[in-house]
Amino acid sequence: MGDLLVVGSVALDSVQTPFGKVREVLGGSATYFAYAASFFTKVRLIAAVGEDFPQEHVRLLRERGVDVTGLQAGAGRTFRWVGEYGYDLNEATTLDTQLNVFADFRPVLGGAARRVPYLFLANIDPDLQLDVLRQMAERPQLVALDTMNFWIEGKRAALRRVLGQVDVITINDREARQLAGEANLVKAARAIRAMGPTTVVVKRGEYGAMMFADGGFFIVPAYPLESVYDPTGAGDTFAGGFMGYLASEERLDESVFRRAVVYGSVMASFTVEDFSLNRLTSLGPADIADRYAAFHDLIRLGASA
Amino acid sequence: MGDLLVVGSVALDSVQTPFGKVREVLGGSATYFAYAASFFTKVRLIAAVGEDFPQEHVRLLRERGVDVTGLQAGAGRTFRWVGEYGYDLNEATTLDTQLNVFADFRPVLGGAARRVPYLFLANIDPDLQLDVLRQMAERPQLVALDTMNFWIEGKRAALRRVLGQVDVITINDREARQLAGEANLVKAARAIRAMGPTTVVVKRGEYGAMMFADGGFFIVPAYPLESVYDPTGAGDTFAGGFMGYLASEERLDESVFRRAVVYGSVMASFTVEDFSLNRLTSLGPADIADRYAAFHDLIRLGASA
Repeated sequence: MGDLLVVGSVALDSVQTPFGKVREVLGGSATYFAYAASFFTKVRLIAAVGEDFPQEHVRLLRERGVDVTGLQAGAGRTFRWVGEYGYDLNEATTLDTQLNVFADFRPVLGGAARRVPYLFLANIDPDLQLDVLRQMAERPQLVALDTMNFWIEGKRAALRRVLGQVDVITINDREARQLAGEANLVKAARAIRAMGPTTVVVKRGEYGAMMFADGGFFIVPAYPLESVYDPTGAGDTFAGGFMGYLASEERLDESVFRRAVVYGSVMASFTVEDFSLNRLTSLGPADIADRYAAFHDLIRLGASA
Repeated sequence: MGDLLVVGSVALDSVQTPFGKVREVLGGSATYFAYAASFFTKVRLIAAVGEDFPQEHVRLLRERGVDVTGLQAGAGRTFRWVGEYGYDLNEATTLDTQLNVFADFRPVLGGAARRVPYLFLANIDPDLQLDVLRQMAERPQLVALDTMNFWIEGKRAALRRVLGQVDVITINDREARQLAGEANLVKAARAIRAMGPTTVVVKRGEYGAMMFADGGFFIVPAYPLESVYDPTGAGDTFAGGFMGYLASEERLDESVFRRAVVYGSVMASFTVEDFSLNRLTSLGPADIADRYAAFHDLIRLGASA
């Protein structure tokens, strides 16, 4: 139990889906992660933004209790991403990426950040992920990371180095296959576990999530929603709910990890219901508890509670 | 609790997958269904075969206790299907279909068959499915059907008539969307329920199965296998395990239906491990109990048993 640090990106996203379109709205892996995790534990955020980053977004995070002292404001513009989704919402097409201040981002951890017991290395250059690990005053109790095809292809050696030092990886199914060079997910997860992480969490979009660990497999479906507006940030929100819940618990055992996968799925199910963090910003604890109960009902084999 | 009748196809399949190739092996929707269901209850099979149908296949079914008196042997050749799968095993490409005796198949129900409490109308012409219902001496306790894109496109009116008279439909996700004219599965299932069946079971291949019913949703993943050789017959095997288990129970309540979805998934997970019915023919009750326990472990949220 304790503080959770996330190092990753804060961005301004422009997204089009079959259900609508938004321009330069709040996004970024660390943003979704931090906001989702803030419902469970104290979160510290380290990321870079530009001079043009709207203060209202900082306020939004601060109001959720997120420690934003690690939000490094640099000269230049904030990272921008432009993407669109077709009716198959599982896959985004990137139309434009402007790294801006994110290109020179070098995470600097303050004293408190160097001592957090829970660390999430969101999807950034694996060399930066390694650098964050090196800055830690002591090895956190639990370290997790996310990554993507870009680093698997272009920085495999660095990625392998950092993978050797983490406990958990969250990764989507396509990238798990790519990282392992193996089409079968069971075999791919085993190969990735052999690279370091004892726990592999595979995110499968509308098909839910799978966890591979010492205690066996655990699979949770995505919540069946009538309206999915925008899947952007779903994976990062999943990781935020997952890590936030873990950081809130006294002990980490298999049951706690299973519940963490469900809390991750709960938070992701809200994110996709609207653009940006719009649905998350209207959430209350009762909404989370209700959807967790709905998940329980969705997967329970025994009699209803 | 009672006898289960299945009316459908018996075929000789030639199948190629990335993992191997078989020629004129035992297949057909009613075959997979009957064999899988035979582990749970007494099954009666009604289907057509040609003069060339190998007696060893009849023996195989009979040895499992399947009542094959309704296997109508006609002049001509047995129904043949030739198909192949790529690495994405979710979708078969049909290379050849020779209906042969199946083209003139008209199910004739004997006295005992007309009084079964459980009826499964496997994937055949909806006019034949209606004809089977008309031949029943009394309305069975539970009627389920399966169908496919061919009938949804070409015989929608007849399909709608028979759908108005059944309790359960098992259908794959793509066909559920097609039948409902609705991309969202939650909305599609609701639309299909409005057509008649109170229970809609959507089969999603490697992603498992979803059940939509009065008691809410239930989702079960497919069992994560290291080796999937041939998905042919998985859906029919699922239906066989599902209906077989239902037919074996004293009462049909929501918990029983949920367990039935898992037993369907259990049986399907065996079918895909080898070509034709090869894995099923080596199964014992302990294998089924073990995999059911493994499924339970895969989806349980609470502590292990």
